Parts: sequence; C-alpha cells; structure tokens
Amino acid sequence: MGNLKYKDFICTQEWAKEDLDRVLKLAFEMKQDRFGSKYLDILFRKQFFMFFYNPSVRTRQSFEAAATELGAHAQFLEPKSMRLKTAKSAGETVEDAAQVMDRYAAGLGIRILEDKIAAYGQGDDLLREYAKWAKMPVISMAHDKFHPCQGLADVMGWIEWLAPQGKLATGTLATTFDPDALKGKKLLLTWAQGALCRSLCSVQEAILIGSRYGMDVTVAHPEGYDLDPEVVAAAKMNCETNDRTFEVTHDSAAGYDGAHVVYSRNWMSPEAYRDGELRKQEEIEKALGYRGWTCTAEKMAATDNGIYTHPMPIDRGSEVTDEVASGPNSCIYDVAENRLHGQKAVMAATMAGFLD
Amino acid sequence: MGNLKYKDFICTQEWAKEDLDRVLKLAFEMKQDRFGSKYLDILFRKQFFMFFYNPSVRTRQSFEAAATELGAHAQFLEPKSMRLKTAKSAGETVEDAAQVMDRYAAGLGIRILEDKIAAYGQGDDLLREYAKWAKMPVISMAHDKFHPCQGLADVMGWIEWLAPQGKLATGTLATTFDPDALKGKKLLLTWAQGALCRSLCSVQEAILIGSRYGMDVTVAHPEGYDLDPEVVAAAKMNCETNDRTFEVTHDSAAGYDGAHVVYSRNWMSPEAYRDGELRKQEEIEKALGYRGWTCTAEKMAATDNGIYTHPMPIDRGSEVTDEVASGPNSCIYDVAENRLHGQKAVMAATMAGFLD
Amino acid sequence: MGNLKYKDFICTQEWAKEDLDRVLKLAFEMKQDRFGSKYLDILFRKQFFMFFYNPSVRTRQSFEAAATELGAHAQFLEPKSMRLKTAKSAGETVEDAAQVMDRYAAGLGIRILEDKIAAYGQGDDLLREYAKWAKMPVISMAHDKFHPCQGLADVMGWIEWLAPQGKLATGTLATTFDPDALKGKKLLLTWAQGALCRSLCSVQEAILIGSRYGMDVTVAHPEGYDLDPEVVAAAKMNCETNDRTFEVTHDSAAGYDGAHVVYSRNWMSPEAYRDGELRKQEEIEKALGYRGWTCTAEKMAATDNGIYTHPMPIDRGSEVTDEVASGPNSCIYDVAENRLHGQKAVMAATMAGFLD
Repeated sequence: MGNLKYKDFICTQEWAKEDLDRVLKLAFEMKQDRFGSKYLDILFRKQFFMFFYNPSVRTRQSFEAAATELGAHAQFLEPKSMRLKTAKSAGETVEDAAQVMDRYAAGLGIRILEDKIAAYGQGDDLLREYAKWAKMPVISMAHDKFHPCQGLADVMGWIEWLAPQGKLATGTLATTFDPDALKGKKLLLTWAQGALCRSLCSVQEAILIGSRYGMDVTVAHPEGYDLDPEVVAAAKMNCETNDRTFEVTHDSAAGYDGAHVVYSRNWMSPEAYRDGELRKQEEIEKALGYRGWTCTAEKMAATDNGIYTHPMPIDRGSEVTDEVASGPNSCIYDVAENRLHGQKAVMAATMAGFLD
Repeated sequence: MGNLKYKDFICTQEWAKEDLDRVLKLAFEMKQDRFGSKYLDILFRKQFFMFFYNPSVRTRQSFEAAATELGAHAQFLEPKSMRLKTAKSAGETVEDAAQVMDRYAAGLGIRILEDKIAAYGQGDDLLREYAKWAKMPVISMAHDKFHPCQGLADVMGWIEWLAPQGKLATGTLATTFDPDALKGKKLLLTWAQGALCRSLCSVQEAILIGSRYGMDVTVAHPEGYDLDPEVVAAAKMNCETNDRTFEVTHDSAAGYDGAHVVYSRNWMSPEAYRDGELRKQEEIEKALGYRGWTCTAEKMAATDNGIYTHPMPIDRGSEVTDEVASGPNSCIYDVAENRLHGQKAVMAATMAGFLD
Repeated sequence: MGNLKYKDFICTQEWAKEDLDRVLKLAFEMKQDRFGSKYLDILFRKQFFMFFYNPSVRTRQSFEAAATELGAHAQFLEPKSMRLKTAKSAGETVEDAAQVMDRYAAGLGIRILEDKIAAYGQGDDLLREYAKWAKMPVISMAHDKFHPCQGLADVMGWIEWLAPQGKLATGTLATTFDPDALKGKKLLLTWAQGALCRSLCSVQEAILIGSRYGMDVTVAHPEGYDLDPEVVAAAKMNCETNDRTFEVTHDSAAGYDGAHVVYSRNWMSPEAYRDGELRKQEEIEKALGYRGWTCTAEKMAATDNGIYTHPMPIDRGSEVTDEVASGPNSCIYDVAENRLHGQKAVMAATMAGFLD
C-alpha cells in the first residue's frame, strides 16, 4: 500500500490488491454521494488530457463527466493533430511532448486500439513511453492489451449484483464495497461470434481482476483464439494464490455450468497482425466461420442464476441474444455506469492523491 | 401546465402554451441577469451531451455557452465516432446507447439535418427513438422538421422589438416577457432565392410558434415550394384558434403589405429527396431559376414599419440585401443572442426542473 | 498606458511597452500563485472561442488550461465547420459571424498558419477583419505573421534564466518580473535546417519583443531566407531606440559569439508562396540544400554561457542536437510552461479588464 499520487494506471495487475480495494471502496462511496461536497473540488480547475488515437463515445463521455464532477476540465485531444516524430517524418518526440504537458495538466488518459498499431503490444509500449517522461499519472482509456477502468467497473457491477446485500439477493444493488463478494464465484469468459474483430483489452483485464478478487475463471473459445499467454499465466497465478481454479475450454456450452458471471464477447485471434498490419477483414471472415458461440437464454439456464455482463457496445444477435442482454439478470447498464464512478476514484487517487 | 423536468423539446407545437410562456418568461429574466447567482448553479457539474450529426457553429456556441453559464459541461460529440448498429454493419442499438448515456448526463441535444438523412422525417424519427429510451430530456438542436430553440429565440426577439415597451416604440429592447405583444401582428415568411438548399426546420418552427402567439401568418413561395402539409395544417389551426388569418401566396411581393415581421429564407422543395437521397445540386439549380425573391428595402417599404428577421447564417445578396440585413429594423443579432437565453431556460426547465 | 479591456493582441509591437510590462508582471505573479483565489474567478463562466484553422496541440492545451484556471470555458472550434462566405460559395460574412459571437463570448482566439492561406499576410488580414467587427478582444493563437503569446513566453523564460536572481546565477528560476533583465543581452536568432517549411510567426515575434526589452539582436540565415522586411525594420528601430545593435549575418556560426540567448529554428523563404499557393515541397527541398545550420554544443561554446530557447515542437537533430536541447542551459520547457501563464495574463487583461 503506497502513495497513489502520480501512479500510472495501465493494468490492474500492476497495482497492489490493497490499492485496488481502496480505489473500489472510494468508487462505491462516490456512487452513493455523486455530487457530494467531499468530492466536488478534488481536481478543482485542473486539466485532464485525453488522447484519443481511437474514437470512442462511452469512454469519452464517462471520463469527461468524471473530470467535470471532480471540478476538473477534460480536454478531448486527437493526436492526429500532433506533429509527433515518426520513423518517416520530422516532428516532436514523446520526451518533449510529455514534459511540456506535465506543466499544464494533472493527468493524461490515452486510448489506442488495434487498428492504430502495427503489432500487438505497441499501444502498451506507447503508454509506457509517455509514463516514462510524464510525472503526472498516465491512465489507460483502453489500449491493445488492457482496459483497467473497465476492469474496475466490471468487479463493481458484479459485486453490486452478487454480494449478500446485492441485487440478486435483495432486488437492489449493493451500496458498499465488499471485497469478498466474488470469492468462490465462477466467471465464465467466452468468445463470441460476430463481425467486429474486437480488441483483447477488456476481456484480458476481466480475467486478471476477476481472479484477483477470488473468482474461479473459465475461458472458453474456439481453438486458435488464445488470449495473450502472459495474461493467461498471470490470471492462472492469481487463481492459484487464491486457491481457485483456472480452466480453458474449446466447448461453446460447457463453461456455463454453475457460472455466476457470464461474459461473452468477440475478440481477435493471435494471427490478426501479420507483416505490420491488422488483417481485419481476414479476422472477420474467420470469425464468421464459427457458429453456436452466441450467449443464449438456453445456455444461461445451466448457470447458477448467473448474471450477464458485457463492456459494451454489444453486438446484439451475435455476442448475445436480446433476451439475455435485456433480461432480468443483465448487469450491463450498471457496469457501464460504474465506468464513471471507478474513473472518478482513480483520478482522485492518482491525480490528486486523495487516498494518500 | 405540467412538470417540465425530463420533458423532451422536439417541437414547440407539442408543448402547452402555458409551458412555452413559462420558459419564455424565464428566458427574459435570464437575459436581464445573465450571470445572476439564481441561475449559476442550476446544472452544477452536470453533463449536457451534444450530438452533432451535422456541424454547426452558432448552435454549438450558444448551447455550449448556455451549459457553462448554468454550471454544466457540454460535451461536443460527433456520432460518426459512435459504432451504432445500422442495416449494414454491426454496432450498438439506440436502446443501449441511450440507456447508458442516461447514467452519465442530464440532457441530450441532437442536431441532424437534411444531408445526413435519406428522406424527410428520418431525423425527427431518430430524435424520438432516443427520447423513447432516454429518461433525460432530448432537445432538438435543429433537425429536418423542427428547430424549437430557434422558435423561442424568434418570438423573444420579435417581442423585444414589437412590444409597447420595445425597440420600435422606445429605442431599446423590451426587457420583460409580454405574451400579448405579437397578437394581431402580421408575420410574413417568404421563400428566398439562393444556392443553399436549406432545411425546413427553422421556417416551419417559425410559423408554428408565431401562430401560437396570435400572429397573422402569410407564407410566400414559388409554386412547388410547399412546406410540410402537416405543419401548415397545424399553423392554420393555431391561427383559427386565435381568430387570426393564415394565407399562402405565390407572389414574391404581395405578402409584404402591412407586415410587422418579415422573415425571408431559402428552403428546399418537397422534391428534394428522391430514391433515398438528397438531390442537393438539382435543388440548387432549380432555385436559381427564381428571381425577384430577395428581400429588399423597396419591398420592406410596403410593410407597417416591419422588422427583418432571419435565423442566420444569412446568404446576403440572395436572401436579403445588405441594406435591409444591416439596416435599422434588422433584429437578427438580437434574435441570435436569444438562442443563448432561450436555451438556458429550456435546459434549466427540462434538465433540472427549475420551473416545477 | 491605457485600458486593456477589449484590446486585441495580434502583435506585441502594437502594444505600449508599459502595457507589456503590466501583463508580464501579472504573468509572473500568476505563475507563483497558479491556483490563487485572486485569479480563479476572473472569467467565471465566460466563454473563450478558439478558432483553429490549423490544428495544434500545445497552443490548444495551454489556452484551454488558461481559460479553465480563470474560471472560463474554452470552446475548441474548427472553422471548416463554419459556412463562411467565400469568393466561390454562399455563406456567412465575418461581419455577421463576429457580431453574433460577441453576444456569446468574452474573447476570440484565432490560429491560422501558412498552409491555410494563399499568400503571406492573409492570416493577419483575417484576424484584423474579425477584430474590426467584434468588440471582444481578438487574440492571436499564432498566425502567418506573428505569435504574440509565444513572444511573452519567450521573454518570461529568458528573464527567469538571465535575471540577477535567475537560474544561471542562482540555480532557480527568477520569480518576479524584472523589466531590465534582458538589457544588453545578446539574442541570436538563427535559421536552422530541417524538412518542415516552418512559419515566420514565432521568430518574427521574438526579435520584435526581444528588441523591445533592450537586447542586442543578431539574425543569422542563409541568403534568400530574409524575414518580413517590415518586421526587420521595426526590430531595428526598437534596437536604435534602446541604443542596441541589430545585425544580420549569413554565416551559420559567427552569430554565436558572446550570445546570451540562442534561438535556432527553421523557417520558410520569401519565395514560399507563388501563384496563390504555398510551395511546401519546394521549400523543403531547398532547405535540405543547406548544411551546418544545426545548433550544436560546439557552437554554443562560443556563447557567453548562453541559454538555448525554442518555441517547440523541436525538430531534434536538424534544428538542434539532443545534447543542447536536453542540456543544462536549455530553457525550452520553462518557456513552454510560460505560454500558460502569459496567456492567462493576456486573457485576464483583455477579456476582463483585470489590469484597468
């Protein structure tokens, strides 16, 4: 447990469990007292720079709202208008850009996804290059490898539903952070069909943070759709540490058995990048070859009254049926709302040292 | 007269006259005390999402200023960066997008004009689809059919000039809302030549709200430039209810006789859409065939010391001469300013329930 | 010394020396007390419109932060979405646009650089056209001729380093404005090689304001890279007024002798525009023909412990070596930070009359 001021937030796995607990506790409190005077001026008149290499609506809306609610101003910046140095053209180095931005702002969010890079991992490298030169915290707003703010929103939502005081038991969301609520619960993360060639960031973050909070984890996907081996190894280690199980299956239905949380989502295969390029169309065609990987009410019947989760936007009809996505056990809108509260807590902690 | 919190503002015609009165009264008060402490925190730290399917400068400037002056933050969003589901591609449904946005924001403005739709009415449909799923109010920032905020600004400006305490009588703008100031005054809405193929939204809103406030209405246009028949029918009904006259003429000069307010503007014909496409170039060429439809000082001489109004931007030289647009009876800048005050009043009423 | 409220800031040369002194003094004070209560609400809930004909990151970041820190809101506007009248198309006049914006905002920043104009001087003309119609101040955010906010940041930084209480003498930046700190110091402005075809705005502003503050000025460039003759004449006159020297040399090394401030930067030649077009590629090729115009540690050794300055972004390796740019005498990040403080002072003075 250390000082969180200036701490980068690139992957939840790099944060101590105690620090994640502190931030999640704050996020729950902020949700209960959204415009409470305690929080209104934590970042009064400060700047949060948002670098959107990739466009986004939800991420922008939630970060920009988070900044506003803490008294800050979020600048929506599209780095295409930055004259950064590249192998091919004159321009500014990250060394220079980051050190100047440090003079103006209290935090830097970066979003860079699969189609803005030439190989898996380059987005992560870029975030770490900024983090190296900037004193202010660098916060991932989703990048090729991880999506730590989505991870926080996920576990918040699952706790709200699964805790003893939660929605499944009482009909209303749990209002306080219960770090043990997910212990021994089974998370099924399953690949889903669809024509989207989606990033790995959300799903990889989900198994990392789910396993940190004591869940049994099952990952289901067709052969050839493995997640990043380093991420799988880390999640497995988290499960071992907590005495929980970690399994991979290539069966589209088996993993539902006894699950408490079902997370179905399309993602790209490890072959998506070749010769410095994302083969999006090939990936989409390959994915279309797999049928039966939609989350349906029939499959959900095998769960232990499981809830349905998804980071949105959902590709309804492919990733999940309307019946499940809009059904009584769908926590999708609660999870989406939690993006706001989780991000407020992270920004307060890392930009203002609110928890130090 | 009902609660206005959460009430959508898609067309003034759908609001009770008493509610329009209340909002206009507030708008006048807000104009007199622009940074008054009563109003500064009505939307403190809240979000207003602005969806600009079509770009705009004045609308953005006035809405973003309105949000700021009420303590809110307006997010400038371009839906092209939203991955919405379409007939042709995977993406998010309005059902999902709207329900998530409801968690983040207190209001949603949408602007969608003629060239972003395939047929007249589709923009209006989109606003109503968002309104169906979002609890927060949906406010039109101009769409294919209506422009309710422009309508408020128009009548505010006309009252400021025509009221007994107004500019024509006293040399300074009326400072309070006088709901009877326009009763029995004659509004001439006249088509104007020009190469712009302009939307119907502003002019349709003008005859709807003008007739609500007791004006005689004359609409002048070349044959083949009819407004939406449903709008014409509603305006006619408004006039009948108020015992006023409603006329249509195809003469470019006759309507000026005795007019108190002259509104000249180019608009597209009902043939503008064909086979799911806006035939903009055809419309422009057709419009160029009509001469003599410019508002001139000579024509204005036939009015009853009439004022000149236009929602801007003006196509000077085609829609109106410089002599009239920059002349002593031009209320264009006052009307433009009123966009700000009217929108502040609408946002306060519908997003915060300030008048409930 | 006059009222500064509503005063445009298009070039420092057009402001009285006493007024520049007052603004710089305020900028130093604001830097020492960045979030001090004296300054927080100077522009409370006001609007600052930023017109970016050219994109920018640093300028946007610093202006948007400046607005926030004074309590205002900065709107990022891209005039491509404005339907302005041009020789070829219908649209709005600056007369109309500016007079409406006056109703909404307290200040207007404009950035328009070399590739958005057809001939040198057209950007300057546009700013003055807006200034003619708008009562609110027009502030240059860099245009083809001048960059007054960069000029303020430059002299602030040079004073911070060169003053008797400054960084060179004491190891820490001077904290108060010393109007005499630059008297008799030698400024070398030298052209630098590179493939960027850069604007004249920053370098022209630098010799104007440097000479105002009593510096000896040497301008070094290859033959054919003359600055605007009117600017050179004005800088020469400033030097004469202060009994200082003004020299031009075509030697890439000689000017370093005894210099206190070295400013190396690429700029375009007077032949850059031909037939209403910027010949960027030709300029880049021409510039590549000159070697030996990089600022190096070897050259810096001839200075009088000179500091290195640059408005950024730097083209490292061409304009200056890493050794110098990241060396102990580089003031680049301090100068960059001063953009924020200088702009806050200008906005407070011209938009709110804070110094009147």
